[in-house]
Amino acid sequence: MDISISKVEKSRISEFDKSNIKFGKLYADHMLVADYEDGQWQTPSIIPFGNITMSPAISSIHYGQSIFEGIKAYKNHKGEVSIFRPSENFKRFNISAKRMAMPEIPSSIFIDGMKKLIDLDSAWVPDIEGASLYIRPFMFATDEFIGIRPAGKFRFMIINSPAGAYYNQPAKIFVQSNYVRAFKGGTGFAKAAGNYAAAMLPLMELKEKGYDQNLWMDGVHHKYIHEIGTMNVLFVIGNKVVTPDLSEGTILAGITRDSVLTLLREKGVTVEERPVTIDEVKEAYLNGELKEAFGAGTAAVIAPIEELFYDGLSMTLPPLDQWEISNWVAKRLADIRYGNIEDTHHWMEGIK
Amino acid sequence: MDISISKVEKSRISEFDKSNIKFGKLYADHMLVADYEDGQWQTPSIIPFGNITMSPAISSIHYGQSIFEGIKAYKNHKGEVSIFRPSENFKRFNISAKRMAMPEIPSSIFIDGMKKLIDLDSAWVPDIEGASLYIRPFMFATDEFIGIRPAGKFRFMIINSPAGAYYNQPAKIFVQSNYVRAFKGGTGFAKAAGNYAAAMLPLMELKEKGYDQNLWMDGVHHKYIHEIGTMNVLFVIGNKVVTPDLSEGTILAGITRDSVLTLLREKGVTVEERPVTIDEVKEAYLNGELKEAFGAGTAAVIAPIEELFYDGLSMTLPPLDQWEISNWVAKRLADIRYGNIEDTHHWMEGIK
Repeated sequence: MDISISKVEKSRISEFDKSNIKFGKLYADHMLVADYEDGQWQTPSIIPFGNITMSPAISSIHYGQSIFEGIKAYKNHKGEVSIFRPSENFKRFNISAKRMAMPEIPSSIFIDGMKKLIDLDSAWVPDIEGASLYIRPFMFATDEFIGIRPAGKFRFMIINSPAGAYYNQPAKIFVQSNYVRAFKGGTGFAKAAGNYAAAMLPLMELKEKGYDQNLWMDGVHHKYIHEIGTMNVLFVIGNKVVTPDLSEGTILAGITRDSVLTLLREKGVTVEERPVTIDEVKEAYLNGELKEAFGAGTAAVIAPIEELFYDGLSMTLPPLDQWEISNWVAKRLADIRYGNIEDTHHWMEGIK
Repeated sequence: MDISISKVEKSRISEFDKSNIKFGKLYADHMLVADYEDGQWQTPSIIPFGNITMSPAISSIHYGQSIFEGIKAYKNHKGEVSIFRPSENFKRFNISAKRMAMPEIPSSIFIDGMKKLIDLDSAWVPDIEGASLYIRPFMFATDEFIGIRPAGKFRFMIINSPAGAYYNQPAKIFVQSNYVRAFKGGTGFAKAAGNYAAAMLPLMELKEKGYDQNLWMDGVHHKYIHEIGTMNVLFVIGNKVVTPDLSEGTILAGITRDSVLTLLREKGVTVEERPVTIDEVKEAYLNGELKEAFGAGTAAVIAPIEELFYDGLSMTLPPLDQWEISNWVAKRLADIRYGNIEDTHHWMEGIK
């Protein structure tokens, strides 16, 4: 598919201070826009990043038909830009689209468009280890109609914002059993806007209590662990890595999660994907078997948990420097991303 | 609170064909806009209806912090315009706002602004029995930030579209137990965008099977009835009216529902608000006790159900002209709205 390109008259790159990257405040010079109308995707265009104009009646604002992805592009020590596993995000985007009754997008727009866009804005990919260009593809319904029905018009866009080295302050996690994030038959496995909206109030409430994130439980028994909301969760119990399986459709199929499990299996670590209850984690903690607990997601990559608060019990994890497994996998992932070791899985996709 | 008013140069009222009202296609001349910034609501303004400009990074598009209401204004036979129970929608809007971590809006904007807006556009309220001006208040997050956090900037708007006499074609309803709309601990009681987005695919799938709407079940037992998605549901079993209660927070507290129950109780009909299983409805059907089944909501007001399809069984209801209860309550509501009988409950709020 052709992509029309209209470049900025003057780049804003001089505003970009690599030594003080403020994620989500500054966007790269260009963005990609593609509209879906009359049953097909129209020619995408790359245009200067800027405001969009829309009717106040567009259905995504009223009825939330909106999905997104988060991907990172890295610059290695040779100055080459590559993107971490975008084809996996592409697949997941279309899984989300299907669940939310939105059209699938072809790879000629999602992948090729993304590469063209990042190539054009490659100066915005920081060359600092730990930093990246965060890529945000998203799609939303644009029907100018407030009747409740699946929309027929959609817009797909990609916007990009530099992200600094994420300082992995160990997180205090609150085991949430009043609010429920996802349930079987719902949209938990989709990266749908409404999942995140529903989590804002629970997030505000626990921040007031001094915690960083919720650990979501299932809504039937309130004991099966789902995820952290922006991350999957993994536990090192004894010498095994244990993480909830994805079979119920209530947990986002994280690409960082998949990458971590792949690397650990390769290393010979025993990995169990299966239902995990909070009581099993609690028991492991009380027995001294809970060695590590961490989130895995695009933003933080590996986010160590220092405290898990459950039903009156504060479970505190051992000091971080003793965390063999997560420290190893975090370094391994970084080495792949910045080209320090061979990318045997072909996870890094070049943009040329 | 002051409201600044900027009128259209030329009204579009000549485009409005009262004999052929197309809901959601044409909007009244003006709209109300109020922004929330720095912890407070700024002065609202009434301006010509038209497109809005926003950053592609606004958080509502990405994370779905968006709520709405649906209200109707009527013109009685004296030509006076009044609004049906807007104070109830105002209360519910703020309940939705709280659940979605959004600021409450004062009645000086929601109610006073709405009345001023409808007064200005009173020519858009059709004077045909059955027709109305549909009022759509909504609020969405406007932070230009793609990090996941509760937003700090919001926009409240009201847009209005004439709605024709709703032809109550009896509906074929599919009892849905694969997909789940709402869950205890979730957002089912809020008029939140994401609830509707999640229902689009199930709606598409059942339309392909020849049904009009889903009847949603609870997600734990798949047998407790919730609602129809855009309407509450009521059953006439024997000489009683039975409808699911609202205690779990999984069902929208419909204002039409409340109005119907109030009128029925006044008439001396036995009304039961309690958990209702689909098996109880099925048993009543098999015993010949299921006399009527209908939805109650702002759009259709009273929507008779002609068929309920559950687990291989097609339950067909008696002919509509035998439906004493719903026909009575539908007429009673219309009589109140168009000023044919005294509005003893003070449900109709004037706009002056």
